[in-house]
Amino acid sequence: MYTLPEIAARFGGEVRADNGVTVRQVASLASAGVEHIAFLTDARYLPALADTRAGAVLVPPKFADATVLPRIVTANPYAYYAKVAALLNPEAVAPKGIADSARVDSSAVIAATASIGANAVIAEGAIVGENVVVGSNCVVGPNVRIGAGTILNANVTIYRECSIGERCIVHAGAVIGADGFGHAPDNGTWVKIPQIGRVVIGNDVEVGANTTIDRGALDDTVIEDGVKLDNLIQIGHNCRIGEHTVIAGCVGIAGSAIIGKHCRIGGAAMILGHLEIADEVTISPGSMITRSVVKSGTYTALMPFQPHREWLTTAAHIRHLDALVTRIGNLENELKQLKGNQT
Amino acid sequence: MYTLPEIAARFGGEVRADNGVTVRQVASLASAGVEHIAFLTDARYLPALADTRAGAVLVPPKFADATVLPRIVTANPYAYYAKVAALLNPEAVAPKGIADSARVDSSAVIAATASIGANAVIAEGAIVGENVVVGSNCVVGPNVRIGAGTILNANVTIYRECSIGERCIVHAGAVIGADGFGHAPDNGTWVKIPQIGRVVIGNDVEVGANTTIDRGALDDTVIEDGVKLDNLIQIGHNCRIGEHTVIAGCVGIAGSAIIGKHCRIGGAAMILGHLEIADEVTISPGSMITRSVVKSGTYTALMPFQPHREWLTTAAHIRHLDALVTRIGNLENELKQLKGNQT
Amino acid sequence: MYTLPEIAARFGGEVRADNGVTVRQVASLASAGVEHIAFLTDARYLPALADTRAGAVLVPPKFADATVLPRIVTANPYAYYAKVAALLNPEAVAPKGIADSARVDSSAVIAATASIGANAVIAEGAIVGENVVVGSNCVVGPNVRIGAGTILNANVTIYRECSIGERCIVHAGAVIGADGFGHAPDNGTWVKIPQIGRVVIGNDVEVGANTTIDRGALDDTVIEDGVKLDNLIQIGHNCRIGEHTVIAGCVGIAGSAIIGKHCRIGGAAMILGHLEIADEVTISPGSMITRSVVKSGTYTALMPFQPHREWLTTAAHIRHLDALVTRIGNLENELKQLKGNQT
Repeated sequence: MYTLPEIAARFGGEVRADNGVTVRQVASLASAGVEHIAFLTDARYLPALADTRAGAVLVPPKFADATVLPRIVTANPYAYYAKVAALLNPEAVAPKGIADSARVDSSAVIAATASIGANAVIAEGAIVGENVVVGSNCVVGPNVRIGAGTILNANVTIYRECSIGERCIVHAGAVIGADGFGHAPDNGTWVKIPQIGRVVIGNDVEVGANTTIDRGALDDTVIEDGVKLDNLIQIGHNCRIGEHTVIAGCVGIAGSAIIGKHCRIGGAAMILGHLEIADEVTISPGSMITRSVVKSGTYTALMPFQPHREWLTTAAHIRHLDALVTRIGNLENELKQLKGNQT
Repeated sequence: MYTLPEIAARFGGEVRADNGVTVRQVASLASAGVEHIAFLTDARYLPALADTRAGAVLVPPKFADATVLPRIVTANPYAYYAKVAALLNPEAVAPKGIADSARVDSSAVIAATASIGANAVIAEGAIVGENVVVGSNCVVGPNVRIGAGTILNANVTIYRECSIGERCIVHAGAVIGADGFGHAPDNGTWVKIPQIGRVVIGNDVEVGANTTIDRGALDDTVIEDGVKLDNLIQIGHNCRIGEHTVIAGCVGIAGSAIIGKHCRIGGAAMILGHLEIADEVTISPGSMITRSVVKSGTYTALMPFQPHREWLTTAAHIRHLDALVTRIGNLENELKQLKGNQT
Repeated sequence: MYTLPEIAARFGGEVRADNGVTVRQVASLASAGVEHIAFLTDARYLPALADTRAGAVLVPPKFADATVLPRIVTANPYAYYAKVAALLNPEAVAPKGIADSARVDSSAVIAATASIGANAVIAEGAIVGENVVVGSNCVVGPNVRIGAGTILNANVTIYRECSIGERCIVHAGAVIGADGFGHAPDNGTWVKIPQIGRVVIGNDVEVGANTTIDRGALDDTVIEDGVKLDNLIQIGHNCRIGEHTVIAGCVGIAGSAIIGKHCRIGGAAMILGHLEIADEVTISPGSMITRSVVKSGTYTALMPFQPHREWLTTAAHIRHLDALVTRIGNLENELKQLKGNQT
């Protein structure tokens, strides 16, 4: 329970029309009650603001007078809301120390404030920083480093030598540092190419559930600071993902792709290997990027969806586009001839 | 080993031409022997029925006389076959009780008939119902509820507060209740939005291997009764999947999508967030749905595949479709002019 | 540290210009130093060869004289490089025997040279061969067979009855043998079809992190010798993947698809069920294969990507392709008429 002045003392902003209200939880404008604080960023939600029963709201300067409710005026109500939500919903504090069922190699260095969960396994030479949480049934390989404040949820696997920065969150089932996919053809069979690079993850990175990030073949795979990865993403060996890039679920990034900073990659997009994406590029969901993108902007490759019967017709036309183009060329030639005849 | 009358006593249907045969296993018409029972739904398989060496068959009324073999006539031979297969292949019964290597918090409530596997971890406040099976190395978070008869296979992770109904099957590696993907932009970095909703799963739901279902941001993510999810599916925060909808492997559903009841979503289809799909909609495999679908029916968005050289031509034409449309418009104008000249 | 003659004694090839150099590690031409051995396959890299500071290089016969560096001339430098890399980077040897925290059923047969990791669980009747490594927190189901020299990394799940060949590598989080996705419709609900087949994996197969391979419905799902699977791949029930086929990440293969030998399937490609792909077929990344492919070759189905504004135009044209085709037909008819009038 916090008053608006208490909240503004932490996160800034200007309190208006304070009536001493205390807020217990965040909520949407539509579902909020008197104990909730809600937020507005967009004129679209002004009707919801008019109707809300929230005890208080967060509004941007341009809508500072759009309500008489107790409010905090702030330049970025959505980010402010995120901070208030974190204040009102503190993470459960994991118990410090090593669960008796965990198996920690005697050469591993575990900070006294770290929490090592039940049945977790930590191998030789691993270094686990202050306030790190290693969830139940995680497996941390030899010589892995995990920076202060990082949380591994349950059933995470980190392979040998990989390095994870500070204040990261790794969700359950993620696999960091499995072998990159490299095999040399040899008379109809494949010879495995040892993957001797690592995965190096910066600070403040989030890795979604069951996401996989492969170790490099020779050099490292690198995830820079502030990158946010959703669930079920595959990142191939020797990729580099630039700072503060966000990647939605089900995306695949093939080996040696270099993604710029501050990019936004939509769900199920796919990026081929050995190419570069510039900074501040947005890739639309479901789009396959097959060449480098050198200019900031939004790029898309999507078949429009249609009722199935209409699509059957469309698909047949697409298969015969070349014949169609020939027909148009023929028409142009005949018409030219016809006009020649007329004159 | 069951006789046909014993089977019909359980599942109904009309026994014909019984010769006292006992069946030990199900099989396809093509591979069945005298100890097997096979089934036919479709006229396409009448030749296989003529050739089968099955000891008995399941047939629909319209093919009741299509064979002289011992048979059970039933309106839905495929569902009947599923029931007979379950009868002949009972699940192994997991040993009741808590494995000594499992770690169960003293405040968790575990039904006496439940089976908690080796090295499973169950946190404080969890409630595990009658005949539940928690597989080896599963992690069940604080205050999770698991309804009677539900089976978690190995290495499943259920995050805090989530609720799973009765008679569900969750396959290995599935992650239920990881944080939804929500970050507010703030001066070039991202502020994490706490995900304070839950995942609530109804009864008789199946969740495939390594599938991920994210917890809601404010409200819950909801999977209604009878939904069947295949492997490697991603369901974003605040989605609702309607009753008895089936979703094939590799599908991604972005946040806040509402999917109707009795839908069928093909493999690798993708559904964007904040949209609604009506009841009884079929989405073809690999199709990206970018807007709400208000009418029952089948919808598709697929590039037809071609030999690579032909595709290169097709792709070039697609990139220049706009110029092509201009050429057609020009032709129409010139032709109109020409016709005007003629008259 | 190996001299070139020591390496050639193991792997063949012709040593030239040996100066007694010893190599400690592999590297790329660009980053190599005097202690490294690098390789060249392609004329594209001749400039890098000219500039390299590598202590030694691997070159094909046609470039045998392209450098004065100490070198080994070999028909296939890339495969040779892979072998040298493996020689210089031996796998860590897992400790023989069963970790005290592992839970191994008394009826399981574990070879004396096998390594069973911390908190691994091995069920009744399992047979684990010589030099097998079962990683930490793996779960090996009842009656599973694992052939000699196979490595399961951490957190792998193998369901009951499945069989894995010799010298396989299974990466973390992979799930082998979960139920195939089979449900019979029955009055608006679904009846589960028991999946009584197995997964049978040959020798020298690699399975990527969090990849899932479902057990067969009646018959087995089969992965033949030498197949290489990347991460986050889904293989449906009753598929058969032919020898030495390689499949990149995020691919989905629906049930009962038969894939030939020596195929190459690009990342995020999708293959529908109940079809056959011939031997030596290449499927381009991101391409959906909807019918059988009977002829070797490369097949593609991809929308080209465009800046978003251009794509909006392209997508609108695609939706109206049928109207466009009608317009072209009308033009052809009118032109024919016009020409008729002229004569």
